[in-house]
Amino acid sequence: MIKQTLNIGLFGLGVVGKGLLDVLQNSNLPGIAVKKICVKTPGKPREVAPEKLTFNASDILDDPSINVVVETISGSEDAFHIVSRAMRKGKHVVTANKKMVADNFSQLLDLQDETGVSLLYESAACGGIPIVRTIEEHFGSEPMEQISGIFNGTSNFILSKMFRDRLDFAVALKQAQDLGFAELDPSSDVDGLDAKYKLILLTAHSHGVVASPETILHFGIRHLRTADIEFARQQGLKIKLLPVCKRTGTNKLALYVMPGLVGEKDGLYHVEDEFNGVQLNTAYSGRQFFSGRGAGGFPTGSALLSDLVSLQRGYRYPYQKHRLNGHTLLDEDIALRVYARAPRTILPEILPFDTMEYAEQSAGHHCIIGEIKLKNLRKQREYLHEQGVFIMRMPQDFEN
Amino acid sequence: MIKQTLNIGLFGLGVVGKGLLDVLQNSNLPGIAVKKICVKTPGKPREVAPEKLTFNASDILDDPSINVVVETISGSEDAFHIVSRAMRKGKHVVTANKKMVADNFSQLLDLQDETGVSLLYESAACGGIPIVRTIEEHFGSEPMEQISGIFNGTSNFILSKMFRDRLDFAVALKQAQDLGFAELDPSSDVDGLDAKYKLILLTAHSHGVVASPETILHFGIRHLRTADIEFARQQGLKIKLLPVCKRTGTNKLALYVMPGLVGEKDGLYHVEDEFNGVQLNTAYSGRQFFSGRGAGGFPTGSALLSDLVSLQRGYRYPYQKHRLNGHTLLDEDIALRVYARAPRTILPEILPFDTMEYAEQSAGHHCIIGEIKLKNLRKQREYLHEQGVFIMRMPQDFEN
Repeated sequence: MIKQTLNIGLFGLGVVGKGLLDVLQNSNLPGIAVKKICVKTPGKPREVAPEKLTFNASDILDDPSINVVVETISGSEDAFHIVSRAMRKGKHVVTANKKMVADNFSQLLDLQDETGVSLLYESAACGGIPIVRTIEEHFGSEPMEQISGIFNGTSNFILSKMFRDRLDFAVALKQAQDLGFAELDPSSDVDGLDAKYKLILLTAHSHGVVASPETILHFGIRHLRTADIEFARQQGLKIKLLPVCKRTGTNKLALYVMPGLVGEKDGLYHVEDEFNGVQLNTAYSGRQFFSGRGAGGFPTGSALLSDLVSLQRGYRYPYQKHRLNGHTLLDEDIALRVYARAPRTILPEILPFDTMEYAEQSAGHHCIIGEIKLKNLRKQREYLHEQGVFIMRMPQDFEN
Repeated sequence: MIKQTLNIGLFGLGVVGKGLLDVLQNSNLPGIAVKKICVKTPGKPREVAPEKLTFNASDILDDPSINVVVETISGSEDAFHIVSRAMRKGKHVVTANKKMVADNFSQLLDLQDETGVSLLYESAACGGIPIVRTIEEHFGSEPMEQISGIFNGTSNFILSKMFRDRLDFAVALKQAQDLGFAELDPSSDVDGLDAKYKLILLTAHSHGVVASPETILHFGIRHLRTADIEFARQQGLKIKLLPVCKRTGTNKLALYVMPGLVGEKDGLYHVEDEFNGVQLNTAYSGRQFFSGRGAGGFPTGSALLSDLVSLQRGYRYPYQKHRLNGHTLLDEDIALRVYARAPRTILPEILPFDTMEYAEQSAGHHCIIGEIKLKNLRKQREYLHEQGVFIMRMPQDFEN
């Protein structure tokens, strides 16, 4: 097998970019070298030879000796600009940027077809867990019923702190920020966006469907309060932030991100702190469960490295299911059994429950449990979010 | 990507062979067809068109239109004969036969090099869990510290029955046999051999080391009794059959299969019945955990299918670590902290403990807990097995 020599242009030198450099230095693999590193802010102290640094993207993109771009910056638009330019110049791309991929998925698929270059993003979904390639390669010809899991390490860390150490959301968030797990603006993590981008990445491989972020409902854990934790605890359950992709019929798929109650027999119950977990329910293999570190320089660096080594052997995602997929539609008519708690009365016009099995009203605590259609939740997402309403799914066995 | 058309000659029509046919029928993939099926016993009723059946291996091996052999028979020698003949005839091979691979690993590696054909065996290790390819591809360039897990569904089913339903070993074994999980001769499953073959398969990819079955210690669960279960239960632990491959130093590796005590925080604690689990401890990604169905026609059929689809795209295991591996030695000098219980006195000449922290003697129940060298356990394996001695590892945190 002839291995391609990789001359890498790296964008970004944050936790992920630095993680890749560390992993590469430890591994000392022949035929893989970082030639140039493009960073945004001049003058920061960096443990890198100054002649390798540049502040000008063109120093990488216009260098014909660089045949691979590794993109680890934050922000989706700048990143897409870099990645699409690199691909058009015939450079392969390895990216850790889930938002960039999710925001531009169709164009990125077209660009791969047009240019013939490879775009790999194992590190963008669930850090160190080798899930993108496993779904693509191992389950590429097997119908997938459901994907779920814990895809966001920051919110899982906060949930563990709230459950185990009985901390308030704000205190737990502050600890996550102090430890470097959460950004100064934690919205993407705690509101479920980050998990949604990862769900979109995996769904493209598991079900062959490319969904736009704006069409998918996401609720996060920002409005989780002690009352909700106590509700879970009394039933011996935990609350986890769960992205779900579920086949609901022939060519019908439901996608959403929402906190949910899980029991002790569920593998996800035991996934704590910054760890991630992925559950697959496949047609022939049944239930599969994977867990590992969801974030951090080394795990993400490891996933980037695995993409680079695959590139050396000429690997591209075959997108087996996407190439076969006819006209799968997103199904928003399914009813979800949810728990909704609000600081004020929840008007039935806002949350039109199909069935209601429990309702409780007291000062500052209005709680309803019942079934409601996914589309009705999505319609009111912004409003519910603004009103501080906490929504979670009631426990449902992961189907097997 | 040009896909190769696969004309398959299938050997064996037991649970696994039938599983593949079912999965292929459900999937209806273009370019994959079973042309001929070789079975051993004429006259059995089979749900297969009679013109596809043959009792003569040469009908497959000498048919130049068949380019892939799928081998699912039991028995190692006959299988190796078939597989090596097929490879020499330029046919790719997909096999579910862990014993055949483990018994003949070096020759099979040489045969792949000589003939240029591909030999894939995802289904041979942990059924539906996509572990061989994940270790080879995702962790192929990352140092692996440790592999452990539950690799044998039959013994795990028996252990679950003994723990949960408080059944005796013999009753639990009978139930496993009645459900088709255990063979009439259950030795390979309950004595730890089956787990050992799988450990050898994974070690070749995770550490690049090909170990012979006869050099690796295996203890099983045959001599597990209520007293041992109660000992575990009192500490809130469970007993699982755990194969281990652990780096003990530069170019040093310890391999063994032995029951062991695991606590609630360990992912393996929650792997019950016929499910399997795999734990990896890698240099950069840290702890990884995978679980899924370890056996059964559909999960194993699914793994065979994934190998076939990979073959269509020309996949071969690159054996990245094996090609780099210099001279790693098996380390038998490490001390293991074990619990040994025997119906009679355990003489110190037989079990030379380095340190002893607990000893109990009563009629029919002699129990010692202490540290003993791996090589001293292996020397006495046969004798201890004959004497009905039950050995298990004391709990040790899976290192992280």
